[in-house]
Amino acid sequence: MNVRGVFPPIPTPFVDDRIDRVALSANVKQWMKTRLSGIVALGSNGEAPLLDEGEAEAAISTVRDAMPRDRLLIVGTGRESTAATIAATRRAAELGADMVLVRTPSFFKNVMTSDAFVQHYTAVADAASVPVLLYNVTMYTGVNLLPDAVVRLADHQNILGMKESGGDIAQIAECVARTPDRFDVLAGSATTVFAALCVGAAGAVLALSAVLPDLCVELVELVQQGRYDEARLLQRRLTPLARLLGSAHGVPGLKYALDQIGYRGGPVRGPLLPLSAEASRQISEQLAALGVLVRRV
Amino acid sequence: MNVRGVFPPIPTPFVDDRIDRVALSANVKQWMKTRLSGIVALGSNGEAPLLDEGEAEAAISTVRDAMPRDRLLIVGTGRESTAATIAATRRAAELGADMVLVRTPSFFKNVMTSDAFVQHYTAVADAASVPVLLYNVTMYTGVNLLPDAVVRLADHQNILGMKESGGDIAQIAECVARTPDRFDVLAGSATTVFAALCVGAAGAVLALSAVLPDLCVELVELVQQGRYDEARLLQRRLTPLARLLGSAHGVPGLKYALDQIGYRGGPVRGPLLPLSAEASRQISEQLAALGVLVRRV
Amino acid sequence: MNVRGVFPPIPTPFVDDRIDRVALSANVKQWMKTRLSGIVALGSNGEAPLLDEGEAEAAISTVRDAMPRDRLLIVGTGRESTAATIAATRRAAELGADMVLVRTPSFFKNVMTSDAFVQHYTAVADAASVPVLLYNVTMYTGVNLLPDAVVRLADHQNILGMKESGGDIAQIAECVARTPDRFDVLAGSATTVFAALCVGAAGAVLALSAVLPDLCVELVELVQQGRYDEARLLQRRLTPLARLLGSAHGVPGLKYALDQIGYRGGPVRGPLLPLSAEASRQISEQLAALGVLVRRV
Amino acid sequence: MNVRGVFPPIPTPFVDDRIDRVALSANVKQWMKTRLSGIVALGSNGEAPLLDEGEAEAAISTVRDAMPRDRLLIVGTGRESTAATIAATRRAAELGADMVLVRTPSFFKNVMTSDAFVQHYTAVADAASVPVLLYNVTMYTGVNLLPDAVVRLADHQNILGMKESGGDIAQIAECVARTPDRFDVLAGSATTVFAALCVGAAGAVLALSAVLPDLCVELVELVQQGRYDEARLLQRRLTPLARLLGSAHGVPGLKYALDQIGYRGGPVRGPLLPLSAEASRQISEQLAALGVLVRRV
Repeated sequence: MNVRGVFPPIPTPFVDDRIDRVALSANVKQWMKTRLSGIVALGSNGEAPLLDEGEAEAAISTVRDAMPRDRLLIVGTGRESTAATIAATRRAAELGADMVLVRTPSFFKNVMTSDAFVQHYTAVADAASVPVLLYNVTMYTGVNLLPDAVVRLADHQNILGMKESGGDIAQIAECVARTPDRFDVLAGSATTVFAALCVGAAGAVLALSAVLPDLCVELVELVQQGRYDEARLLQRRLTPLARLLGSAHGVPGLKYALDQIGYRGGPVRGPLLPLSAEASRQISEQLAALGVLVRRV
Repeated sequence: MNVRGVFPPIPTPFVDDRIDRVALSANVKQWMKTRLSGIVALGSNGEAPLLDEGEAEAAISTVRDAMPRDRLLIVGTGRESTAATIAATRRAAELGADMVLVRTPSFFKNVMTSDAFVQHYTAVADAASVPVLLYNVTMYTGVNLLPDAVVRLADHQNILGMKESGGDIAQIAECVARTPDRFDVLAGSATTVFAALCVGAAGAVLALSAVLPDLCVELVELVQQGRYDEARLLQRRLTPLARLLGSAHGVPGLKYALDQIGYRGGPVRGPLLPLSAEASRQISEQLAALGVLVRRV
Repeated sequence: MNVRGVFPPIPTPFVDDRIDRVALSANVKQWMKTRLSGIVALGSNGEAPLLDEGEAEAAISTVRDAMPRDRLLIVGTGRESTAATIAATRRAAELGADMVLVRTPSFFKNVMTSDAFVQHYTAVADAASVPVLLYNVTMYTGVNLLPDAVVRLADHQNILGMKESGGDIAQIAECVARTPDRFDVLAGSATTVFAALCVGAAGAVLALSAVLPDLCVELVELVQQGRYDEARLLQRRLTPLARLLGSAHGVPGLKYALDQIGYRGGPVRGPLLPLSAEASRQISEQLAALGVLVRRV
Repeated sequence: MNVRGVFPPIPTPFVDDRIDRVALSANVKQWMKTRLSGIVALGSNGEAPLLDEGEAEAAISTVRDAMPRDRLLIVGTGRESTAATIAATRRAAELGADMVLVRTPSFFKNVMTSDAFVQHYTAVADAASVPVLLYNVTMYTGVNLLPDAVVRLADHQNILGMKESGGDIAQIAECVARTPDRFDVLAGSATTVFAALCVGAAGAVLALSAVLPDLCVELVELVQQGRYDEARLLQRRLTPLARLLGSAHGVPGLKYALDQIGYRGGPVRGPLLPLSAEASRQISEQLAALGVLVRRV
């Protein structure tokens, strides 16, 4: 099993502040018609921290049911406590996850040392019946899973790789260079994904790929084929929208964009606010420039 | 109802990784023999992010049962989603909380604007049957509840005050100066509590006060009595231990210290690590210097 | 010799981008009619990093000539290299400086350790014929002179104290508590000066005191007299203007304010930009609220 | 005139704390036997902030005399004031600089807006008789020359490009993508130079290239030839030493390394400290691993 290719961290649609399983299923079926390698459910873009455990389980089974068995379902199961992470991982595996993506715990930032991360992930990987991916997303967690900890964890037989959502290319390069070949690093930032692939990332988990699946797959393939000049130009075309859906507007931006192109994004959950009119305009403008804006009926 | 005085944000003791209700109850009874104004349960020092909802409820009822009705029980009920925060607040009130302390949501840092905080806290305060305290703890959340948002929220009839755990005295002074007298600001950082009181904080929520209840109460009273020179000297005596139990070693340090002085701290929950031998030595040294180290039988 | 009291870090007026000695002299004479304890020339607010060595010397002798000998002239002589700092210190002393204020070198931030600072300041203090004040201004330098280094340097017989321009009250308190009584800590941030005095600062170097000399002196005296409640209220009145003249608008704001109240501020030197119309309006509004706006003829 | 290729930002050797012109000249002649495209004198690695104006001029003429006229001499002339920067630029041009590299002014960080940078660089480029390169080195200056300012300045006929010393690849990519082809971006961080080249950097200014000139030139050429896999592997080989000579140990590390390989590094100037024994050991180890360590007689 490997995680090369492109995976969208899909959002969780709501109706009346409950999970909209119909919309979620329809979205997944639509993504499965593209060349995406699978799905990441319950990542940051899935508003996972805003769901309760029952909702998380409903989301997993909905997604699994809408996917062919041979497409990879990766489920976010990171919780603050080690025990809760293990429990969530077990449930996800039972519900059909092929792999879990485990965000760093982060609340007690001052004591989240490399030793603490190694202890946490080792316990989770020991207990998990499916392979584990590490997940470093400093922009949201405020902690940094440093290469020294990654290198120590990459020796664990049940840890297959990591998603690194930061844009620090030196750090990504170090994680690639200092881990065995079987350990895959997935890029999580769409504004730097080309550079990450250049330094050795094996694939990508990109919110952008929920909106532009085939262009994102094409970017990865161009690098794999050594067509760097074309890849660089494609990255440049994608960067403005990547920025809007990333650090600028996050989940509300992604859901809005999906609504514009025939998927079902819908409202976000509080404390997230609806997208502002100005942000909506910026995103629509980029979608139009990329030729993917559809007219809703 | 007001929150002047000193409140300890109490830790949650575990036995076999389950809540140790006997130890928790014994601790609370012991604190209630001091001049502390009440208890803060399920704050950061209570490892609240590491508990599930059932454990949280067990902790609340245990603490309430161990306290006289006329001592204030403040319960931490902040969750990432607005809806979960409202639900936790409702349960806490039913279980006997006099007031709730609501940590800022913080996961989606890039969109946690003042508008988002105002929407979140307004919804929580509208729904709560008990008064609400805002809670800004940037060291752990990585977001900052700015005075502009505090000023807007201080107008809400069900928001009584805030706990500000940061050491930015200009920010504390601004929160005090720009809010009505009925809105109390509680200092949350023991290394700067004297300065916070000088600029108008009404009281304090200090991990240090779980270890040194009467000295912390004395510090607040000295300022209230205008005895600033004595207060300054007392702060200096307390600062080294305050630092060790705060940013240096956090919850593991606090639990260790309690174990040394006749309370029951016990182990922490993963991903927190046990206190290192060197940190233990530093804390014991300060406890000895302050004359509170007891010999355990 | 001590540095208790209030010192304005005076700006350097220019005419046709040369130092305006007439304006500088007139300003100093006017300040000397107030209760300020002396003058700080060639500090950050004096645009010292934008002057050449000849201009610096002209400024020093102009200021000295305009001051009575018994009012303290403190001159900023920090340079990036140790040797240049020693040379500037020697020239300042020859031109009549009573004391020098030596900003931390800061360019090579990654290697500016406490050891580097101790070596630098020791060499300067050894060579100086007048007493030396340390000067930590992280907002401008991006480096932090930590208490551990301050404590080591406070033992030097020719180092009399420090100016700490940051607002970290815990750090100021630590510098006061861990140094001998003969070592004075001067507060450099007007928004937190009351709190700094509470924790033991001996005086203050405040841009605000160039505009409001007597109110700043009054604030220090109120604390010295134990009249903390009055001091707290005075701090609150001063805070909005303090903020505008500090981190918000810096030197251009200070010069503009001086122009409004009968001193001669005049233009700044590039790369500084002239104050915006909006910032001018904010400052004028605060000056009017404080009753010090004068109508220019 | 273009700046493609690799340029070493050369250190300034001292003897008895004066510039050692003999050593400087010998070093330059040795570098000129390699495939480096020219020399950057008086950059950060040249300890420029620690030199006086006379020393700067001596260094420039020494370097110019040691170089053939057809190899590019780029001289650092950034000063804090716009006027001093213009004066230093004029002197450098008179002494034979082909181009100047102008570091952002940075002291008054809070007001160093894009407008301030645009005003500063426009004035310098208007006045300069030789082409100007912008220079962003946030690690040392604490300010960031953002792409928006770069884009505005790239229209100036006398601004040919920039050196970006940061490792933020998204920022480098944006500077490349949003400026005309005639505007060259040089990478300044050796740990991320391969990634910077991938996203379109035209060349590099690397301290590492003073130690390993031909390997650095080879890295740039491999990318130009589309041999990305070889380039990636070469970057990996170079990264450990790149890190040691960059953020880890800076100028003292670079001078030490030069001393080990037959160039003349020599002592640094205060406040810089001599390299520690441990750092020396790490650097020697990397030099040995790369096979460039020479035995000094």
